[in-house]
Amino acid sequence: MSQVLSHASLRFALAQLDFLVGDIAGNTAQMMAQAIHARDQLHANVIIFPELSLTGYPPEDLLLRPSLSARVTDAIEQLRSVHGITMVFGLPERGPSGLENAAWVLRDGERIARYVKHKLPNHEVFDERRYFVAGHDACVFDCHGLRIGLTICEDIWHPEPARAAKAAGAELLINLNASPFHVGKAQERLAVVAERARELSLPVLYCNVVGGQDELVFDGGSFALQASGDLAMQAPQFEAGIYVVDIDLASRQLLATTQAQLPDTPASIYQALVLALRDYVTKSGFKGVVLGLSGGIDSALTLAIAVDALGAERVRAVMMPYHYTADISRHDAAEQAARLGVHYSSLPIAAMVEAFSSTLSDTFSGLGRDTTEENLQARTRGVLLMAISNKLGYLVLPTGNKSEMSVGYCTLYGDMAGGFAVIKDVPKVMVFELCRWRNAQATAAGEAEIVPTRVIDRPPSAELAPDQKDEDSLPPYPVLDEILRRYVECDESAHDIIAAGFEAEQVRHVLRLVDINEYKRRQAAVGPRISRRGFGKDRRYPIVNGWTIGK
Amino acid sequence: MSQVLSHASLRFALAQLDFLVGDIAGNTAQMMAQAIHARDQLHANVIIFPELSLTGYPPEDLLLRPSLSARVTDAIEQLRSVHGITMVFGLPERGPSGLENAAWVLRDGERIARYVKHKLPNHEVFDERRYFVAGHDACVFDCHGLRIGLTICEDIWHPEPARAAKAAGAELLINLNASPFHVGKAQERLAVVAERARELSLPVLYCNVVGGQDELVFDGGSFALQASGDLAMQAPQFEAGIYVVDIDLASRQLLATTQAQLPDTPASIYQALVLALRDYVTKSGFKGVVLGLSGGIDSALTLAIAVDALGAERVRAVMMPYHYTADISRHDAAEQAARLGVHYSSLPIAAMVEAFSSTLSDTFSGLGRDTTEENLQARTRGVLLMAISNKLGYLVLPTGNKSEMSVGYCTLYGDMAGGFAVIKDVPKVMVFELCRWRNAQATAAGEAEIVPTRVIDRPPSAELAPDQKDEDSLPPYPVLDEILRRYVECDESAHDIIAAGFEAEQVRHVLRLVDINEYKRRQAAVGPRISRRGFGKDRRYPIVNGWTIGK
Repeated sequence: MSQVLSHASLRFALAQLDFLVGDIAGNTAQMMAQAIHARDQLHANVIIFPELSLTGYPPEDLLLRPSLSARVTDAIEQLRSVHGITMVFGLPERGPSGLENAAWVLRDGERIARYVKHKLPNHEVFDERRYFVAGHDACVFDCHGLRIGLTICEDIWHPEPARAAKAAGAELLINLNASPFHVGKAQERLAVVAERARELSLPVLYCNVVGGQDELVFDGGSFALQASGDLAMQAPQFEAGIYVVDIDLASRQLLATTQAQLPDTPASIYQALVLALRDYVTKSGFKGVVLGLSGGIDSALTLAIAVDALGAERVRAVMMPYHYTADISRHDAAEQAARLGVHYSSLPIAAMVEAFSSTLSDTFSGLGRDTTEENLQARTRGVLLMAISNKLGYLVLPTGNKSEMSVGYCTLYGDMAGGFAVIKDVPKVMVFELCRWRNAQATAAGEAEIVPTRVIDRPPSAELAPDQKDEDSLPPYPVLDEILRRYVECDESAHDIIAAGFEAEQVRHVLRLVDINEYKRRQAAVGPRISRRGFGKDRRYPIVNGWTIGK
Repeated sequence: MSQVLSHASLRFALAQLDFLVGDIAGNTAQMMAQAIHARDQLHANVIIFPELSLTGYPPEDLLLRPSLSARVTDAIEQLRSVHGITMVFGLPERGPSGLENAAWVLRDGERIARYVKHKLPNHEVFDERRYFVAGHDACVFDCHGLRIGLTICEDIWHPEPARAAKAAGAELLINLNASPFHVGKAQERLAVVAERARELSLPVLYCNVVGGQDELVFDGGSFALQASGDLAMQAPQFEAGIYVVDIDLASRQLLATTQAQLPDTPASIYQALVLALRDYVTKSGFKGVVLGLSGGIDSALTLAIAVDALGAERVRAVMMPYHYTADISRHDAAEQAARLGVHYSSLPIAAMVEAFSSTLSDTFSGLGRDTTEENLQARTRGVLLMAISNKLGYLVLPTGNKSEMSVGYCTLYGDMAGGFAVIKDVPKVMVFELCRWRNAQATAAGEAEIVPTRVIDRPPSAELAPDQKDEDSLPPYPVLDEILRRYVECDESAHDIIAAGFEAEQVRHVLRLVDINEYKRRQAAVGPRISRRGFGKDRRYPIVNGWTIGK
C-alpha cells in the first residue's frame, strides 16, 4: 500500500522529538505514533527521525550491553508494521567489524537503504569511538524519482561525506542529528550546513533531537536549506514537534511554512535551562523540586527556572537563616516565593550549627575561626534540604553558578548538595542578565517581576560571615567571568590573559583556584551545559595534577 | 662521549618510576637523575622510561593546553644534556595531522629515532583517540650492532605493530607502558607479551610506570622475556625502581638478576590500595587523613590501609556514636585505634541529630520514619569529618565498599563524604579476605592482629536503626557480590544471571538497585580501581535512563 503522490511534490516531516535514553520500546512507540500521524494528518511521504532515535542520545555504556541487539531487532520489527510512509531513523547496529552508528530507510516493511556514520566525534562531550566503528560508503535512495542522500550529524561538519553522497547521485541531503546546544550553536550549524549546501548545490534537511539528557541539552531547531544555502524552514528551538517541508519535484525547490525565530542569547539560555530541568525531573520521576532560597540572585534565578519548568505546585523553597542572614534577604526570599506562589518555609539553622560547634570545640581547641565555620553553615543547610528530599521525594536543586564552580566558592555537601545543578554552567554576569530578561518578559506580559529588583541590585554575598561580600575575596564578577572564559573555555594561558590586559596577580590567583578545585567539581551534581565548555564531559582534568600555571 | 662497551653484552635499565601527572619539569628532573644513576652506578647502556614519561599518565585534557608543546620542548632540551647513555622515553608531540603519543630515542644530545603509537585505546578507562592521532610506521634503531624495535603499550596487545618492527629488522622489542592494574592483570600481560615474543622469536623488554593517579593504580611489574617467551626478569609490583637486564650480543640471550615474586590476589589488591592512597595524599599535599571508625569491617580495613600507606602519625580516627551504636562497636573501634597507635576521638552525634529532627518536625508532621532518619545520622557524621578536614588539613576517607556503592547502600554527603574512597572498588567478600590477609601478615611478623577478630566475625550492620543487619535488606554478601560481578563487570543480563542459578526476584531487585543509584555514584569520591570494571571512567552510564532490566 505504497503512497501515491497526488501532486508533483514530495512532503518530508522532520520529527524533532524528545526521547528517553535507553527506553528503546518507548522511543519506538513514540516513533510509530508520529509516523502514523505524519502519514495520516500531515500527508507526509517521508518522516525523518534524529540520530540514534531508537536509543536516544547519548546511550553511553548501554551500548555495550549484550542484550542491545535483541532490543533493537524487536524495535525494527515493530517499525516494519507502519506502511504508507518512508521512515528514516537512527539506530546502533552490529556490523562486520563492530558496532555502527547507522541509519535505516524503511518503507512498507522493507529496508530500502542503510547508512553508517562516517565521522565519529570523539572530542568535547563526545565519545563515539569508544562505541562505534566508522562507515565509508555513501548511501542514496530513491523516493518518487528523487535521489536522497543520507548523512549523520558530525558528517555534515566535514566536506567528504556530503561530497560522496552527491557523487553517488544525491539530489537532496538528509542529516540526522543529536547535536547539543551551546550559546550560538544554532547559528554555527546554519553557517556550516549552508556552506555544505552551496558547495554541492544540494538542498539539505537537518533534523535534530530535542530534550535534556543529564548535562546535555538538545535544542531541536531543525531546519531545511535550499541548494542556494537559503533558509527554507526553521523549526523552533527547545520544543518537540513535527515540522513539514515540501520539495517541488520539477524545480527542486523547498517550500515550507514554519519559520520560527531563533531566540537571542539570554532567551536561548533560559529556555535551555527550563527544558533541561523539566526533562531531568520528569524522566527521573521526581514529584517536584526543593531548593534553598537565600534572598540572593542565584537561588532567585533557580527558583524562577524551576517554576517555569514544573509549575509552582511542584516547587518548594526553604529559607534557612542564620545570624549572618540579613533581614532584607529573609524578606526578599519570602517576597519572591509569594510572587511565584510556591510552598515556602523557614528553617533556622542556629540550633544545629551550635551543636556542631560545641561537639567540635575540644577538637578545635586553640585554633582560630576560618572557612570551617562557614562550611558548617552551608552543610547544615545541605543536610536539611536532603532530609526534605528523602522524606518527600523532591529533588534538591543546588543553586551555584559557573563562576563559583570555577573558583571553588561553594561548599561540597553544602550548597553543592543536590541532584541537578541548574545554573552550574551560567557565569554570574549572565545570572544577572537572565534575571533581567525574565523580569522583562513578565513585565511585557503585564505580570509582576519574577525576581525582586532589590535581589538584582544588592552586592552579592554568601552571608556566611559578618558583612561578607563576594568581591572581598574575588575580583569583580565582570573581570572574573572574562578571566574564566578565557581560561576554561578558550584554553588561554596565564601569559595570554595577562597580555590581554588583566592584572597579573589576579589572573594567577583565579587560575590557581580553578586548578585546585577540580576535586569539588568532580563531586558536583550534573547540570545543563550551555557554554562551549562546561565542567562536565567536555573538560576532563586530573584531580592529582602537577601542572603549574606558568608565567 | 659515547659509552664504550667493555664486553660483548648490552645493559638495559628499565626505569619503573612514579611520575606526577602534569609536572613536566619535575618528571624530567627525575628522569635525568635516574639516567645519570643508571649510567654511572648501574653501567647501563640504555635506559627505558615508560609511556608519556614526560607528562605522566593519563594527562587527560592537559594535553589540550596550547602551552604543552613549549613545556615538552623545554624538557627535551634538558634531556639532551645527558650524554653517555641512550634514553628511550615517551612524550606527547604535535605531528602533521595532530598530537601524537610518541617515543624518542636520545643519545648524546641527538634524537636517533622516533616512534608514534599505532594502537590508541579508546575503551575501558582509556580515551586516547580524544587526544592523539595514530602512527603507522615501524621504528628500529641500532645500539652497538643490536637492532631494537619500539612499541608503546596497547601496540603489544595486537600482532601488527610488533610484526612491523620485526619486518623492519628488529632483533629485540621495547614496549613502553602506562598499564593500569586490575586483579590478575600482571598475568594477562605476561601471557600476551609471551605470545608476541614467541610468535616473532624476539626478546621483549616491557617497562611499566608505577603509582596512583586518581582512580588508576599503575603497578609496575616490568619484565623482560626471552625470544622463547620465557621470563628473564620480573620487577616487583607496586614499587618504584630501576631494574637491569643484559643481552648477550653473541647469543641474543637476556640475563638478569631481579626475579620478583608476583603477589597473590589479596596481597596485590592490598598493595594497590596502599600505593594509591599514599600517592593521592602525597601528590595532593595533604597533611594526613581522617576517617570515621564505626567498629565495622569497612572502616577497620580503611584504617589499616591508611596506616600502612602513611604511618600512624598522619592518620586520625573518629568514632561518632549514636543510640544504635553497639557497645562492642565503640570498644572494637577504640581497640583497633589503640593497636595501630592512631589519634582517636569520640564525637557523639545525638545533639545534632536531635536538633535536625526538631527543626524538621513541622515539615515532617504526620509522616512516618523511613531512611530519612538514617541518612540524617550518616550526614551528621559527614559534616563532622569534613569540619575536621577543613580545620586541620586532613583528607577525609570515605569507607564504603563496592557492594554498597553498587546498590546504593550508602548516604550521599554522609558516609560517602570525603576525597578518596579507598575501598570503593572492593566487594564486601574481598573486604573480609583483605582483613584476614593483613592479620595473617601481622601474625607472621609476630605482631598483634590489625583488625580485631570480633570486627571480622560480627554480622555487618550499618547501625542506623535498632538491631539492623545488612542482610535484612540485601542478599547475603557472597550471593550479592557474585550477582554484582556478573552484572557490573561482565555485562550479563538478568536473564543470564537467573539462568546461572540465582533467585529471579533477588537478581531483579539487585540489578534495579544498581541502575537507580547511578546518581549517587556520579557524586562519589574517586577511589582506586582494582577490578576489571570499576565505577569510574570504565563504566559510563547515563543517570537519566529508561533501560529496563528485562526478563
